[in-house]
Amino acid sequence: MATYKVDERDVHFNIFEYLNIKELTAYDKYKDQNEELYKMILNEGLKFALSEFDPLYVAGDREECHMKDGVVIVPKGYKEAYAKFAENGFVGIDTPPTYGGQGLPCMINTATMEFFTGSNVPLLLYAGLSRGVANILEAFGSPELCQAFCANLYNGKWSGTMCLTEPQAGSAVGDIRTSAKKNADGTYTITGNKLFITGGDQNLTENIIHTVLARVEGDAPGTKGISLFLVPKIWVKPDGTLGERNDVNCVNVEHKMGIKASATCTLNFGEEGKCRGFLIGEQSRGMKMMFQMMNEARLMCGVQGEALAATAYENALAYAKERIQGANTAIINYPNVRRELALCKAWVEGMRGLLYLTGKSIDLAHGHPDDTIKEKAKNRVELLTPICKAYCSDVGFKITEMALQIYGGYGYVSEYPIEQYMRDVKIASIYEGANGIQALDLMGRKLASKAGQLFREFYEDLTQFVASQEGNTELKNEISALKKAIDTVAQVAMKIAEWGMSGEKTKPMLSANYFLELTGHTTLAYILLDQARVAQAAISNGSKDSFYRNKIRTARFFVAHVLPMVQMRAKNILSEDLSSIEMEF
Amino acid sequence: MATYKVDERDVHFNIFEYLNIKELTAYDKYKDQNEELYKMILNEGLKFALSEFDPLYVAGDREECHMKDGVVIVPKGYKEAYAKFAENGFVGIDTPPTYGGQGLPCMINTATMEFFTGSNVPLLLYAGLSRGVANILEAFGSPELCQAFCANLYNGKWSGTMCLTEPQAGSAVGDIRTSAKKNADGTYTITGNKLFITGGDQNLTENIIHTVLARVEGDAPGTKGISLFLVPKIWVKPDGTLGERNDVNCVNVEHKMGIKASATCTLNFGEEGKCRGFLIGEQSRGMKMMFQMMNEARLMCGVQGEALAATAYENALAYAKERIQGANTAIINYPNVRRELALCKAWVEGMRGLLYLTGKSIDLAHGHPDDTIKEKAKNRVELLTPICKAYCSDVGFKITEMALQIYGGYGYVSEYPIEQYMRDVKIASIYEGANGIQALDLMGRKLASKAGQLFREFYEDLTQFVASQEGNTELKNEISALKKAIDTVAQVAMKIAEWGMSGEKTKPMLSANYFLELTGHTTLAYILLDQARVAQAAISNGSKDSFYRNKIRTARFFVAHVLPMVQMRAKNILSEDLSSIEMEF
Repeated sequence: MATYKVDERDVHFNIFEYLNIKELTAYDKYKDQNEELYKMILNEGLKFALSEFDPLYVAGDREECHMKDGVVIVPKGYKEAYAKFAENGFVGIDTPPTYGGQGLPCMINTATMEFFTGSNVPLLLYAGLSRGVANILEAFGSPELCQAFCANLYNGKWSGTMCLTEPQAGSAVGDIRTSAKKNADGTYTITGNKLFITGGDQNLTENIIHTVLARVEGDAPGTKGISLFLVPKIWVKPDGTLGERNDVNCVNVEHKMGIKASATCTLNFGEEGKCRGFLIGEQSRGMKMMFQMMNEARLMCGVQGEALAATAYENALAYAKERIQGANTAIINYPNVRRELALCKAWVEGMRGLLYLTGKSIDLAHGHPDDTIKEKAKNRVELLTPICKAYCSDVGFKITEMALQIYGGYGYVSEYPIEQYMRDVKIASIYEGANGIQALDLMGRKLASKAGQLFREFYEDLTQFVASQEGNTELKNEISALKKAIDTVAQVAMKIAEWGMSGEKTKPMLSANYFLELTGHTTLAYILLDQARVAQAAISNGSKDSFYRNKIRTARFFVAHVLPMVQMRAKNILSEDLSSIEMEF
Repeated sequence: MATYKVDERDVHFNIFEYLNIKELTAYDKYKDQNEELYKMILNEGLKFALSEFDPLYVAGDREECHMKDGVVIVPKGYKEAYAKFAENGFVGIDTPPTYGGQGLPCMINTATMEFFTGSNVPLLLYAGLSRGVANILEAFGSPELCQAFCANLYNGKWSGTMCLTEPQAGSAVGDIRTSAKKNADGTYTITGNKLFITGGDQNLTENIIHTVLARVEGDAPGTKGISLFLVPKIWVKPDGTLGERNDVNCVNVEHKMGIKASATCTLNFGEEGKCRGFLIGEQSRGMKMMFQMMNEARLMCGVQGEALAATAYENALAYAKERIQGANTAIINYPNVRRELALCKAWVEGMRGLLYLTGKSIDLAHGHPDDTIKEKAKNRVELLTPICKAYCSDVGFKITEMALQIYGGYGYVSEYPIEQYMRDVKIASIYEGANGIQALDLMGRKLASKAGQLFREFYEDLTQFVASQEGNTELKNEISALKKAIDTVAQVAMKIAEWGMSGEKTKPMLSANYFLELTGHTTLAYILLDQARVAQAAISNGSKDSFYRNKIRTARFFVAHVLPMVQMRAKNILSEDLSSIEMEF
């Protein structure tokens, strides 16, 4: 059953028109690249998603992962597809070329990841973590570790994992109990249990390379004393060849609501006291390094939300055009169905814009020659990461729900992929830091960071955009609604800063989720109106493509139907209501 | 695994304090009953739910229904539990005692149905339809049909179904193609295919009694020409004994996202031209009769939304009190978790109030001696039915999602019941008329009904409540927020009426879902504030019970966090935005 659908035109619009990827090729880092190359990669990626990932998606959900003789068995066809995926160079599209990355822009990686995630998220997860581990080694590991591990992570012989969570330490990662003790040969003996480890075991690759948070005995409690270790399932000798089986074992694979073809494992490290690992980077700096990997993973959660929402929407749209109901009319002609489809469309396109824009900011942060712009781009990525993660996963889930509802009874049965999209997208709101944690990150860390600079820069850019649109008569009302929303975000941010200065801790924590939501709505309205501006230019240049007219309608729709939520959430925050705190549960 | 949890105190508060069920015992219909009896039934019901329904809930989901030798096999233990359920008299708690009902108030039925639905909704569904079929026969069938069928539907020997949907006719029920032809002996030959039939086949009962919508050959097209038939799986002779196997066959049982232990079947009637049925009531009056059954079923969808939300919330609450995360603190002490729990609590208690209040309105409509009050109660039920159905199922789903999120990763794995609650509640937004249809029913039919009388009476009651609370200083702000919301509902209703008079059809249809939502929020705020009033009275009478203080906080919370949504939805409607209609999909 072929299920994956994506609006390729909108992907290209984002990359080549709205975000104008060509700009990048003026910088040293991308000087050997060009738009043709980018188009080719996008085409290859989509073709691969449709021909190799999509056909395994539904069957993998039915088959699930299971344990056999102590090893996790993944569904049929996954092993071959994973190998081909790596062979095609898709593991490290935007990582450095040194050990096997392709050095392409993050924007291109974001778009191809949308295709891979949307067509088979559980399968993609294995590769996403391989890339993450290689990337962390390249950034922080010794040349010897890179030499021994990276190439095989990129070429698909091995795969990677992130081992953070323990039964007693989920959101509170500082409470981990896994310990490390230095051996005479410079390696460390690792002891502990890790829970919910994606790809923690599988029969896809000949080896699995775990990155493990652990505390060297005697180091400080909390996050400060945490170090990061590289723990291969099968020992890797300095020359890169395999040694003996390491003392790390999968003792359980979870039965889950969704992403059933992705193995979620419980791992025991050092049950026999013989688990060895390498320290990555400096001792006690594990959280900082893990955060790099986590930030990437958080963007990928956002992509998961957007990508599954996008394919759910496109499927619902196709269904609504075909499904006749009453008076020989396809259901798309019923206004309430049409409104829901427009809502899905506007949200999907807004999220796509947000994610690709963040991708471009990453590219600028890495590749722009001007340090001021680099710095500003870095700030932007930091500010937008929790919004990408939480907003896109929560909204992505809502969209799959709406898509399911458009199918009626057919949405609830497994004959159609919609219910699987809904089950599969839900995890994106939970893993890599539950969305409540993202909201606290945005409010507690990002808003206050550099004396408010991240937020100020963002506010200024949006304000400048509004000012630049003063003469836009066609979208006059929409621009003025955006201005009002921006002012509301600023007003709420001021209130939060005020609370911070007066030592008030409860009210900000009560408001964090709302603040993330209203910032997200405002950002999407800005992006959709900015896209409408590009569309207006194309139209005045003579284009008759309905795509552009739809872009203007999409922005208008979002402003009328979603943006008012900003005032509502501001009202929630500014009510300063404490009844939930007073409640005696 | 025992999973069902409910706030029994709140159930009793609704029935004995807020809605004062004692009132009913003054009326003839209930004169032999008393509060002690009601308490006993509630206790028995909850005990039964916990001891017989709950233990089968998770296992039934794992086992699912499947077909074997042409018969649907339900999960282990279901047959015995169903028999005991009927034996205890739970099939017809509030139906007439003539053939096996208990003649108790609908309020009591609503509460016990909350227990049964919350503890095992797929199992309860079989019984819900048995009751529905008996009830429709008692209202419209001949004494002979009642005599032959009702007792066995109540005592659990047989069960019932509602056969409406066909592959090409879901929401557009007027498009059904199933046909009926009168035979010489007065029976009808039925031919057609029905889809998504709950309990369409099973091995629970010795016979299955289908109610089937079909068109007598030559009758008008559309809903006007539809008749209702009684089609037993095994023929029933006039004396009630079983005859030969009827020509109705289950050809498929669906694999679904949830309610997996409830058999959702495709039925073929008359493949060999030998399917016989009895006409119920008058020819061509099938829709009217089916609507009675559907209205009951719609309230039960609301109960499903509320009941699963309630147990999901109670489970999440218990988890939040136990789960330590960071600084030796249970997560309930984190303000953002606490806010979400308060939101679940407020919504659950508001929905419970709405459903039980609707139950009381049904009781008044049936039992009150004064015809004016009877009529008004009937109007209220008609107005509130689509709100109960759509608002409670949609919000119920949101609450299960929040509860899942509170569990973090543990919410996503099948070890905990939360993900099953979420999967099981989703169908309530779809079946018995998808929620989009409910919204159109409220706006197109109920709002306009009797020249607006239903809505006017409701508006007057709410306005009167606000006026009566003028001296309520403790809840002054909340009452004034409610007043504003009521005025907004009225303003929007006026706009819709205006559209109607000017022949504008698109804008009302675009606004229907929003209108249902804002009316729902306003109704819940009214109910929670009315409950707070009762709590204030108890406190001023000297009660120290924290339950009452929490009721006041709950109302306050709802007004601060949910009620502002009314203005937001009004803004959506009053924007009169048509961009979704103009969109070229």
